[in-house]
Amino acid sequence: MIIIMKPGAKPSSVQNIVKIIRDNGLTAHLSEGDQVTIVGVVGDKTRLSQSNIQIAPEVDKIVNVTESYKIVNRQFHPEDSVIHVGNTDIGPHTLTIMAGPCAIESEEQLLSTARAVKKAGATFLRGGAYKPRTSPYSFQGLEEEGLRYMKAAREETGLRTICEVTSQKAIETAVKYVDMLQIGARNMQNFELLKEAGKSGLPVLLKRGLAATIDEWLNAAEYIMSEGNENVVLCERGIRTYETSTRNTLDISAVPVLKQKTHLPVIVDPSHATGVRAYVAPVSKAAVAVGADGLMVEVHPCPACALSDGPQSLTFDDFGQLCQELKPYASLAGREF
Amino acid sequence: MIIIMKPGAKPSSVQNIVKIIRDNGLTAHLSEGDQVTIVGVVGDKTRLSQSNIQIAPEVDKIVNVTESYKIVNRQFHPEDSVIHVGNTDIGPHTLTIMAGPCAIESEEQLLSTARAVKKAGATFLRGGAYKPRTSPYSFQGLEEEGLRYMKAAREETGLRTICEVTSQKAIETAVKYVDMLQIGARNMQNFELLKEAGKSGLPVLLKRGLAATIDEWLNAAEYIMSEGNENVVLCERGIRTYETSTRNTLDISAVPVLKQKTHLPVIVDPSHATGVRAYVAPVSKAAVAVGADGLMVEVHPCPACALSDGPQSLTFDDFGQLCQELKPYASLAGREF
Amino acid sequence: MIIIMKPGAKPSSVQNIVKIIRDNGLTAHLSEGDQVTIVGVVGDKTRLSQSNIQIAPEVDKIVNVTESYKIVNRQFHPEDSVIHVGNTDIGPHTLTIMAGPCAIESEEQLLSTARAVKKAGATFLRGGAYKPRTSPYSFQGLEEEGLRYMKAAREETGLRTICEVTSQKAIETAVKYVDMLQIGARNMQNFELLKEAGKSGLPVLLKRGLAATIDEWLNAAEYIMSEGNENVVLCERGIRTYETSTRNTLDISAVPVLKQKTHLPVIVDPSHATGVRAYVAPVSKAAVAVGADGLMVEVHPCPACALSDGPQSLTFDDFGQLCQELKPYASLAGREF
Amino acid sequence: MIIIMKPGAKPSSVQNIVKIIRDNGLTAHLSEGDQVTIVGVVGDKTRLSQSNIQIAPEVDKIVNVTESYKIVNRQFHPEDSVIHVGNTDIGPHTLTIMAGPCAIESEEQLLSTARAVKKAGATFLRGGAYKPRTSPYSFQGLEEEGLRYMKAAREETGLRTICEVTSQKAIETAVKYVDMLQIGARNMQNFELLKEAGKSGLPVLLKRGLAATIDEWLNAAEYIMSEGNENVVLCERGIRTYETSTRNTLDISAVPVLKQKTHLPVIVDPSHATGVRAYVAPVSKAAVAVGADGLMVEVHPCPACALSDGPQSLTFDDFGQLCQELKPYASLAGREF
Repeated sequence: MIIIMKPGAKPSSVQNIVKIIRDNGLTAHLSEGDQVTIVGVVGDKTRLSQSNIQIAPEVDKIVNVTESYKIVNRQFHPEDSVIHVGNTDIGPHTLTIMAGPCAIESEEQLLSTARAVKKAGATFLRGGAYKPRTSPYSFQGLEEEGLRYMKAAREETGLRTICEVTSQKAIETAVKYVDMLQIGARNMQNFELLKEAGKSGLPVLLKRGLAATIDEWLNAAEYIMSEGNENVVLCERGIRTYETSTRNTLDISAVPVLKQKTHLPVIVDPSHATGVRAYVAPVSKAAVAVGADGLMVEVHPCPACALSDGPQSLTFDDFGQLCQELKPYASLAGREF
Repeated sequence: MIIIMKPGAKPSSVQNIVKIIRDNGLTAHLSEGDQVTIVGVVGDKTRLSQSNIQIAPEVDKIVNVTESYKIVNRQFHPEDSVIHVGNTDIGPHTLTIMAGPCAIESEEQLLSTARAVKKAGATFLRGGAYKPRTSPYSFQGLEEEGLRYMKAAREETGLRTICEVTSQKAIETAVKYVDMLQIGARNMQNFELLKEAGKSGLPVLLKRGLAATIDEWLNAAEYIMSEGNENVVLCERGIRTYETSTRNTLDISAVPVLKQKTHLPVIVDPSHATGVRAYVAPVSKAAVAVGADGLMVEVHPCPACALSDGPQSLTFDDFGQLCQELKPYASLAGREF
Repeated sequence: MIIIMKPGAKPSSVQNIVKIIRDNGLTAHLSEGDQVTIVGVVGDKTRLSQSNIQIAPEVDKIVNVTESYKIVNRQFHPEDSVIHVGNTDIGPHTLTIMAGPCAIESEEQLLSTARAVKKAGATFLRGGAYKPRTSPYSFQGLEEEGLRYMKAAREETGLRTICEVTSQKAIETAVKYVDMLQIGARNMQNFELLKEAGKSGLPVLLKRGLAATIDEWLNAAEYIMSEGNENVVLCERGIRTYETSTRNTLDISAVPVLKQKTHLPVIVDPSHATGVRAYVAPVSKAAVAVGADGLMVEVHPCPACALSDGPQSLTFDDFGQLCQELKPYASLAGREF
Repeated sequence: MIIIMKPGAKPSSVQNIVKIIRDNGLTAHLSEGDQVTIVGVVGDKTRLSQSNIQIAPEVDKIVNVTESYKIVNRQFHPEDSVIHVGNTDIGPHTLTIMAGPCAIESEEQLLSTARAVKKAGATFLRGGAYKPRTSPYSFQGLEEEGLRYMKAAREETGLRTICEVTSQKAIETAVKYVDMLQIGARNMQNFELLKEAGKSGLPVLLKRGLAATIDEWLNAAEYIMSEGNENVVLCERGIRTYETSTRNTLDISAVPVLKQKTHLPVIVDPSHATGVRAYVAPVSKAAVAVGADGLMVEVHPCPACALSDGPQSLTFDDFGQLCQELKPYASLAGREF
């Protein structure tokens, strides 16, 4: 932690800061410039958490030199993590494809999709049973009934299954039916939910919040991991910007940034990022090329009939073709697919 | 709802749309331009929710002409709502000041603050017992113990009390101690929590999400109200932008926009919006001048010792002076204070 | 300037940095923490401009502790500046109202507007003769003919006049007709134009760029002032965000931020910020309450007939009423109006 | 153009709109819904430009159904354009690599870079002679001297050359020395400069503005093309968002969006988009995978000594390796490289 004093700060203001630091059992290093004095703090800075140094007299700003997250930090875990979900690995040697409908609508819809995505090459079936919808009057999901269809689909196809959870109660139900939990963008900073997901024992896919910074996202992952759950996968799904020609703006550079900051796997959701079927294939290729560990893609037997997010869903044929086209990109990235 | 076809769309594509509309029991109005054909839909558009017209062949875009929220809409409730909390009103004839510490830290801290803000003119005591913090290693709040102090402060001072809730369990506890619940920015689209708050019976202050549009915010209020709870107050607290000289960017124009779209009261939180003590007073005056029904201001006996958000908290003296300075602005706005 | 090394940086990497600093005639202060070493640089940091320390081995980040602008910095000019334009002052004791049509359309339109805004209390007539329009097929302005009408309006009414300039040629023409030049948002970082405006000898109103940070804006003002022109006024006109219910998002907190960073006067343009006539009056009051030195307001004899930005223009009556309503706010702010 | 009336608009307000439309020689189509009446306009909507229908009584909003740009619109030119620059093509069958230093610093620096990038596979040499810098105290470029080095580099290596221009005067000089002009992000809406570039006769690379929408960008291209210059290439270089871990946020989806809206070639600048050397290679691969027609990459003989943007520049070795790694991606995209 570095404390930068205001230009021309009085010696007494500087000494005040030094005293606060020492009173907390830490060491202060002074660096006096022509215009500005800087105080470096050596030691465990959490000891200062009860002293709001930022508003002591003549303090200009505080610069943190270490991140607040620890378990997710690559510094403390230099090797890429591999997350095991049943017999499937998510990590640096695999291209993991999660596919399925935005919302589970019926057993037939889910099973036919499961068969199609399995055949094309997906290893995970996705499907929403609890749908967070902007309006209370939109379709809210089949809940436990939907989860039962997920279980049936897993039994028939051998696919791993993943489902979004939106409350503690949904977690309690979902753990009985699926292999992996998803925390959606709107709940990325629902810290109570993150803790519950951490305690669930299941691996967790954590989507980036609508306008979350990468550091906030990694701190959210830390909430899950600090409950003892090390099986976290991050999912970039676009951020909110002023541009409206896509539903969100995919932050593709987030993938290499994350690869530098954390050891956790990172996948990309081109469907929510763009919101437009025609853009899903090119953006999927870009995601694999940039180094993503996988993709989450919306697929529906009849996008024109979907109850949720139809415009961005691929048909079975589209998806089959996309998987074919992705194979050489996976191969260039040294990933099995 | 209006459906705009792509330029040069084939008659068969247009007829396909018309058929879908009619099959759902609605009326279609055709408007054929030189380049573009437009189809207007007359009737209850929710009947079309299972037909993804947007991805039918040669459809360019869909324009919705009515909002998806109803109970919060001023169109269906032209008069300004007044929210009664105990003997206190929040609405067009009052300037409501909610003040107190970001986090409740001790009984003495809370009581001394309650006395000071009461004396200065506040009618509500705010204080956080459940703190949603970016890092799991930051102070997370005193929980029920803090709520007990809130109750004691109410008993001594007669102030109304408000506290943020972050889970169903927190709601169940809070209803026993406080007069009003607050849903924070990070939970604005935690729809399960909104429904629980709606069922709680207490009035609810709903803060705007970090990057929520005004329409998303009004739909979130609709979630609460559709549970039968009509006592909702909105709180603008700044949105996320690229500018970093303030913690968030206060969207001051949101106040007149909301006044046009909804009948609910709107208050402004200058403390979280700016994050800087020196900006709280000027921004508070602006909020009153623009038409806000109240303010939520952080006040702390010793901002330099605060466990949370000290840099933006006012001292008792600062707050007393601010209230004095606000009086003529309240008066110009025709509000009691 | 502070250089933060990566955690566990090798001593040789630190020594490399120290050597670069010393080789440039500067002093390095080392601060070795448990995890991180920090190097403070004392002396004129521009000497380091040819050494990209940021990419030397094991450097994590660079923190600048002083701003890059000087003449606009309040640190070097603690008193508020007063800009004299003819017999009119823009500064802390006055509320300056600039009003007029977005685009000059005819002599009659401009003269009638000039008379109306003068009568209501404006001291400046604004009007666009060179219009930067998104599409090349929109009305582009009357150019020199429009400027002649500006001169005629000044002669008749005694109002000061201000006009946007978009090229060196426009500046050369405008100096013959108007009292003050305006650099628009789209040209805020057209550095060649800024330098020309600096050389023109006329006072300059510098609007904030569409998505400019406050620091970029102050650096743009520095371009003008470093040509020897000290008469610069800043104009906040809203920034680009994801919110679409207003044309831009007025960054009202920018006013107190600027008051802290610079001595230059700051005015607010509620018309471009909101883009909606109904929001101009409340936002204008907020701007005065927050401490702005003036307003720039669009007024048109017949907004429904305006060639540019009609929806945000006030009628003469609207504007007259707004000025009446602003008087007590000006008075509270200690400003003549 | 569609005009949406407010809910419950009076018949007289609707008739007023119909009259305005007819008075301008156009046809109005009425569509009366349960709550809302919609008026479709048939005919050349520019005839309505003098009638601000948006502020006529009880009009809610206007929806434009056709874009304001024409020559850049793919609708009127369905085939991909190929831009010829000397013996080099930019278009769908080629991967065009433009490489070189951010700023030209010396003849030796430029020539050595030209040789290195030519050897690696670039066909264009980039280099800044006129540098738009945030601060007036930063290095501003060698101007005409730098252009002479560009000409020398072209003569020796046979590379095509491209240089940013920031004023009419810079254009007049540059046309004597280089093959292609670049309009930078800060000048994307400097409409006077766009027109001059249009008249120059040279092909133009138009970078996206810092916070420009795709529609504004295409309208800026229309300014150039409406001067008779059909040789325009678009360059995505990242947009401004709240995320700070990269210099800008690369909007990778903009590539497929543009491919749908326009026939012009699109290239990507990974150096300015990310601002970090380590991210340039992965992002370059993503750009090729998503369908870009080329890349613009900063290369410097000694990034640590660069006068501008060193942290994002590749060394000769880095760049050579990147080109090797890009070859299979170019091949998958069916492009010569």
